[in-house]
Amino acid sequence: MPDLLFTQLFPSFSLATVGFPPIPLFLAEAAAENDAELAPLILAGVLLSLIVVFLASKVGGEICARINLPPVLGELVGGVVVGVSALHLLVFPESGATAADSVIIQILQQTAGLQASQAAEVFSAQSEVISVLAEMGVILLLFEIGLESDLKELIKVGPQAAIVAVVGVVTPFALGTLGLLAFFHMDLIPAIFAGAALTATSIGITAKVLSELRQLSSKEGQIIIGAAILDDILGIVVLAVVASLAKTGEVKLANVALLLFSAAAFLIGTIVIGRLLAPYFISVVKELKTRGQLIIAAMIVTLLLAYIGAIIHLEAILGAFAAGLILGETEKRHELEEQVVPIADLLVPIFFISVGAKTALSVLDPTVASNREGLIIAAFLVTVAIVGKVVTGFALVGKSDVNKMAIGVGMIPRGEVGLVFAGVGAASGALSSSLNAAVIVMVIATTFVAPPLLRVAFNMGEGKEEPAVAAAGVEADEG
Amino acid sequence: MPDLLFTQLFPSFSLATVGFPPIPLFLAEAAAENDAELAPLILAGVLLSLIVVFLASKVGGEICARINLPPVLGELVGGVVVGVSALHLLVFPESGATAADSVIIQILQQTAGLQASQAAEVFSAQSEVISVLAEMGVILLLFEIGLESDLKELIKVGPQAAIVAVVGVVTPFALGTLGLLAFFHMDLIPAIFAGAALTATSIGITAKVLSELRQLSSKEGQIIIGAAILDDILGIVVLAVVASLAKTGEVKLANVALLLFSAAAFLIGTIVIGRLLAPYFISVVKELKTRGQLIIAAMIVTLLLAYIGAIIHLEAILGAFAAGLILGETEKRHELEEQVVPIADLLVPIFFISVGAKTALSVLDPTVASNREGLIIAAFLVTVAIVGKVVTGFALVGKSDVNKMAIGVGMIPRGEVGLVFAGVGAASGALSSSLNAAVIVMVIATTFVAPPLLRVAFNMGEGKEEPAVAAAGVEADEG
Repeated sequence: MPDLLFTQLFPSFSLATVGFPPIPLFLAEAAAENDAELAPLILAGVLLSLIVVFLASKVGGEICARINLPPVLGELVGGVVVGVSALHLLVFPESGATAADSVIIQILQQTAGLQASQAAEVFSAQSEVISVLAEMGVILLLFEIGLESDLKELIKVGPQAAIVAVVGVVTPFALGTLGLLAFFHMDLIPAIFAGAALTATSIGITAKVLSELRQLSSKEGQIIIGAAILDDILGIVVLAVVASLAKTGEVKLANVALLLFSAAAFLIGTIVIGRLLAPYFISVVKELKTRGQLIIAAMIVTLLLAYIGAIIHLEAILGAFAAGLILGETEKRHELEEQVVPIADLLVPIFFISVGAKTALSVLDPTVASNREGLIIAAFLVTVAIVGKVVTGFALVGKSDVNKMAIGVGMIPRGEVGLVFAGVGAASGALSSSLNAAVIVMVIATTFVAPPLLRVAFNMGEGKEEPAVAAAGVEADEG
Repeated sequence: MPDLLFTQLFPSFSLATVGFPPIPLFLAEAAAENDAELAPLILAGVLLSLIVVFLASKVGGEICARINLPPVLGELVGGVVVGVSALHLLVFPESGATAADSVIIQILQQTAGLQASQAAEVFSAQSEVISVLAEMGVILLLFEIGLESDLKELIKVGPQAAIVAVVGVVTPFALGTLGLLAFFHMDLIPAIFAGAALTATSIGITAKVLSELRQLSSKEGQIIIGAAILDDILGIVVLAVVASLAKTGEVKLANVALLLFSAAAFLIGTIVIGRLLAPYFISVVKELKTRGQLIIAAMIVTLLLAYIGAIIHLEAILGAFAAGLILGETEKRHELEEQVVPIADLLVPIFFISVGAKTALSVLDPTVASNREGLIIAAFLVTVAIVGKVVTGFALVGKSDVNKMAIGVGMIPRGEVGLVFAGVGAASGALSSSLNAAVIVMVIATTFVAPPLLRVAFNMGEGKEEPAVAAAGVEADEG
């Protein structure tokens, strides 16, 4: 507000230098007044949401840890409990929720003096903040995973990861699309869209589970992570292609080629350039005298690569992963790991709780008649989703020294990536209601089934084949 | 978007259970589609803003550290450089800026495919996120300060802090209001408002400087922090009273009494109850097995007290400070301090850079004729602001063992608290353009002048009186 007055006094100082016309001053004034009044309420909403997130993540995680399940599964279930399926504490506008659906908004109305007329704006702003914090959480998660990954090891498993990724994209896509056409007599575009939604592995969930099983730096872990990253790239290409197919009825080869090229150039380019520049980065950090010199310098690199990843139509998390890989090769790796842990501890649960909170279990209710067609299609998609990924490990012909079952099982969870497909499909109108519901069920089922199966697969591997490679440098469950 | 479909299929599951009517579904659908499209652009804007914040804080902080000034001054100047006064990278809607003023929005338009029609919404959402992160930064800062403060020591300095706080509120308020009435022939209400804007010390800036000088746990440091906290409470009471005076022309005694009572009850109550409950907190934390058990449990307590502080019309930061004080008394103090450092390293600069970025230096330009009346009033306010606080140390009659000059100087900076006064004054129409500009200049001058003066005052104290009490347990400049 102070600057508002400056704007009135000295318009030459603060008005636009480029671009579209500024909004009239009286509007800016009204908006500014409104902002000043709403800011403490938005902050209060964010504080309450974070309390809910942290409580849900700890209660869920601790229960799962006690019954020998991965804590991340508990965080997801904790998210489901506080989210749109049950307590309605954490609901999001992008799932169609309004301020009236949010129990946190109701608490703010009763305790913080929030007026009904302000509820919609506070709800929207608060959800925006939590969504961005969740994104920062998955960025930190991928940075931490990159930091803990051994680049040389990842390059060594590159060809095997590529085989697993390509088989893991082609198999469920082909089985899903053809099955929907043959058994359910669907139109081509919806069938292709649902088939495509089966392709992308959720790297976040798998990596967290691997880390909890201390298998992140095992050979299987590295292949799964490598394949999941390639899968993510392939998945985004598939999504772009399918979405443009759904919109226009034609696929532009130039776009596909550009996406493929930029993905390859980005990953290879950042790693090559990053390894060349890393010594200069370290010497700059050593010159700095003020608090937080290492973590802030590392975050500048990470956020910059995340930004580049986002604007070249890949994903921010790929940039963050690349940053982690590059900085993990430097002498500051262990110091950085120690400083990243508490930050990740706070931000990563926001991501997992949000994924759970956005998952509406109401589509699983078989007593509602309109759910049933969707449930049958869902059963088919779940089967294809699991079988189509489990086979990927066995595509590694002649490799007897790896736990093939564990690799296949590690590729099962679709998580947030599958939800992106469902979202874009619903928005573009390519997916019918029941097909969309079926895709969601597939995402939920694969996400919930993978962690315990992965645990079993690694235990089988340990018992029957040979001892699993001991994972070093992975964070402990006991913090 | 997936859940949107559920809303259509099963309205009973996701519609409101209580409260006002939900918005029509087709509107929700349009909003949801829009959200999904804008989310990656908002994230990209936040990533760019954070890169700017971190670069500005490190460049500014390192330059100041090298010329022997407190790094926090460099962070403020760094914020001014990237903010509304110069580079326009970080501008905020509450200072009247629009999307067209933001260079980050222009970068997004040129690199991330942001459309002109989406710019306003992305700008508003991105600014909202950065503002909340800045608030989280000051919450973390106060939590860290509370953690490092010695509660027994603070209670010991309580009476002295109370004297300093009361004198530091009454003196500048009386001098300022009477001077404006006598010398500048102002109306009563604007004079009272400007006088009130001189009262509240910025605890954040002072505490950071004290910490950098390693004086946070010295006797002077404890008195300054204690007085600044009391000042904050008194300042908020003054603001509430003056704002209601400006609006209605009458002061409601019941409100003043309620505010005074709730502030006292909150601080004393949380500390007494907190010390009783702390052993249970520690034993629960010891039972937890999953990652981040200590920091997440501590954050739940901190955010809860911050929320209570915010909703009882005090400040969130007071709750965070109380949480830090309580947990600082437990055996987990040092473990917690270590884990809070990297989180504070990331979040606190967002606060200081934002304060700098919102400061418009254009009002200092004497070549613009309309600035001149404001500049003369500003010179008067700056003088009163400095003198009115410097005398506070000397109100401690008979205490020869403390550096009185350092205490007075430590109370000088008004920072963000002064900006809140200016903002509310401008919004309510109580402050004229030139008086508002003068208040801003006072805030800038006191904020910039205090850190070097504080350094001088502590050095004088060391040389002439006796060695300053060695500060223990305060974070080092070299992280």
